[in-house]
Amino acid sequence: MPAQNFTPPRRLLLGPGPSMVHQQVLRALSTPLLGHLDPAFLAIMDDIQARLRGVFQTKNHFTIAISGTGSAGMEASIVNIVEPGDTVIVGVNGLFGTRLATIVERCGGKAVRVEAPWGQIVEPEAIETALRRSGPTKAVAIVHAETSTGAWQPLEPIAQLCRDHDTLFIVDAVTSLGGAPVEIDRLGIDVCYSATQKCLSCPPGLSPFTLSDRALAAIKARRSPCQSWYLDMALIAEYWAEGARAYHHTAPISMLYALREALRLVEEEGLPARFARHQLNSEALIAGLIELGLFPLPPAGHRLPMLTCVTVPHPIPEAEVRADLLSTYGIEIGGGLGPLKGKVWRIGLMGESSTEAHVLTLLNALEQLFIRGGGLSTPGVALQAAARVYSRRAS
Amino acid sequence: MPAQNFTPPRRLLLGPGPSMVHQQVLRALSTPLLGHLDPAFLAIMDDIQARLRGVFQTKNHFTIAISGTGSAGMEASIVNIVEPGDTVIVGVNGLFGTRLATIVERCGGKAVRVEAPWGQIVEPEAIETALRRSGPTKAVAIVHAETSTGAWQPLEPIAQLCRDHDTLFIVDAVTSLGGAPVEIDRLGIDVCYSATQKCLSCPPGLSPFTLSDRALAAIKARRSPCQSWYLDMALIAEYWAEGARAYHHTAPISMLYALREALRLVEEEGLPARFARHQLNSEALIAGLIELGLFPLPPAGHRLPMLTCVTVPHPIPEAEVRADLLSTYGIEIGGGLGPLKGKVWRIGLMGESSTEAHVLTLLNALEQLFIRGGGLSTPGVALQAAARVYSRRAS
Repeated sequence: MPAQNFTPPRRLLLGPGPSMVHQQVLRALSTPLLGHLDPAFLAIMDDIQARLRGVFQTKNHFTIAISGTGSAGMEASIVNIVEPGDTVIVGVNGLFGTRLATIVERCGGKAVRVEAPWGQIVEPEAIETALRRSGPTKAVAIVHAETSTGAWQPLEPIAQLCRDHDTLFIVDAVTSLGGAPVEIDRLGIDVCYSATQKCLSCPPGLSPFTLSDRALAAIKARRSPCQSWYLDMALIAEYWAEGARAYHHTAPISMLYALREALRLVEEEGLPARFARHQLNSEALIAGLIELGLFPLPPAGHRLPMLTCVTVPHPIPEAEVRADLLSTYGIEIGGGLGPLKGKVWRIGLMGESSTEAHVLTLLNALEQLFIRGGGLSTPGVALQAAARVYSRRAS
Repeated sequence: MPAQNFTPPRRLLLGPGPSMVHQQVLRALSTPLLGHLDPAFLAIMDDIQARLRGVFQTKNHFTIAISGTGSAGMEASIVNIVEPGDTVIVGVNGLFGTRLATIVERCGGKAVRVEAPWGQIVEPEAIETALRRSGPTKAVAIVHAETSTGAWQPLEPIAQLCRDHDTLFIVDAVTSLGGAPVEIDRLGIDVCYSATQKCLSCPPGLSPFTLSDRALAAIKARRSPCQSWYLDMALIAEYWAEGARAYHHTAPISMLYALREALRLVEEEGLPARFARHQLNSEALIAGLIELGLFPLPPAGHRLPMLTCVTVPHPIPEAEVRADLLSTYGIEIGGGLGPLKGKVWRIGLMGESSTEAHVLTLLNALEQLFIRGGGLSTPGVALQAAARVYSRRAS
């Protein structure tokens, strides 16, 4: 058994999440608890809801934090909307789109998979074709930021198609929220879920979640109750959204303290500055990685600013370098999932992790490992490429 | 919007949960994060699993913490075991038994409700009759510690019936785990879930959960996949229980740090000493409450040692006194739920909340409020009754 006071090894978290957490958020976690029905805690909930509406860029009254991780948010978005027999068109171009389709089927829904190669976006035309062919369609579900591939899915044309076909629009913003625009109201997104441990830089355990009035009406018009009691938004509304603050389940109080503080830091920075920071650091990172022969998997124009997925060419020993980064440099980056296992690295610059210092630290460590492995002879090339991006922006 | 550094009002948490959290557990929450696949974090998970087996008094390999509150644990216990058409006998003598039956039905199962008045236990004979009449029965589900009524359900005779009828035994130990014996292996309980914010005195957000090999075999023999993806134990086993540590969803890292520390404190005290402490403080509390005319709802012999539910007689203004306790004394106790709303108080002495000092503080505050309200003339009678219990034990 470990010693009483557990001191974790130092880690720079540059994987696909969790991201680095600000000291003030860690401090908020250790605030003494209030009861989940205490008026002082209910005020915290109001505050969180208001701040979540800010990052979601929405006026949706039903904007809450689900008591589970981003995957619970994904499940909630499907189990509340989909009833047995409903058709849902799902964009599948990575692990999380695949999972969305699986969950639709576990609800007894019919998942129409619109597939694209991993790393590519799902073309709106393909969604349109599916909408035309599938008959009455309850919803279109798509992943905004595919964490398994680094692809950045354009939402606007699909949102328009959903309006045209009077279909609900479900968006996975797990990795994008707080790092790139997630414009719920402007685009008319009906259901959107995220996670706390990505660009919000809060520990994992909660799923920010918002529902349009149209989605709420669909939930209220269900023929059968939601198959999940824990994630039943018709019930959860009574605690979070409808003012009654009636007991449903005990809220994860400490995590909500942390989320409030994380959202406060987001607000302090401001969304435009935050998005620009993510974009800049990602460009510098990519410039450096390219110098090392590591090319982004998604095509230019569709690369996420908070998650860079690069192919790892032969003969670089993918897992070995990643293990060295962790053990020698204390830097965590992610490997590939599913068909990309052993073939890519996923580097997250999310929230607190997205800084110039972290980009340079990672590139420097990679250079050293590549030099040691014989794949690179001149130190500093990647750093120089990154520096050029930063100086261009600074001038 | 509240100020930057949120300082919650001081609270003594003596309601039905959350309970008070030890300073070291709060400190553990603020430990910097590791990735959920970091070898150093996987060692933390191993440690948590070993310690959870200790409090559950089990050798079950599949002993984990679910990434959700106790209600998620309840849902997980049902959705993994019950398939459409399965019969489940559910003991219903309070809110949580009622909820269990609802969740069985949301799985397409047939819930056979064996009812008893709120505050009473479910008689094993009634379960036996239901087992005889219901034909093939997948499981019997019962609440060990009914948080809505304070009733302490004997498990042993029902466990025996389950063995005799070759039926799985599902037990809700949300409020009992860590405060009273939950003997998984000795009784042969197949599925058991709990929560962190009760007698384990950790913040809410996780659900300790254990499965017997028999339950696991039933899950592996399912005809259809679990309707929940998030709570699908066949998938979660790959991350938590089967050594592969394969990604399913991002573990709630900070909460798991806290749980590990809370479990360490439980182990440091030792289960027998901890159970005795809960029993003693509960007896002292009840002795004091009776002096104030507040009698426990459940009959003697079936009163929980960590949650005392007393009826509030006319003309005591139930909600008003409770609000005064909170605003004037900073003490939280719980009101009644469902049919008991406005009629009872639920006083939790769970984990860190179960101390002599807290019992005396609460009784003193109640005496003062009762004197002010004209319902009591002699100060100190409740305190004296409690003191008699403590001195009897000390001698």
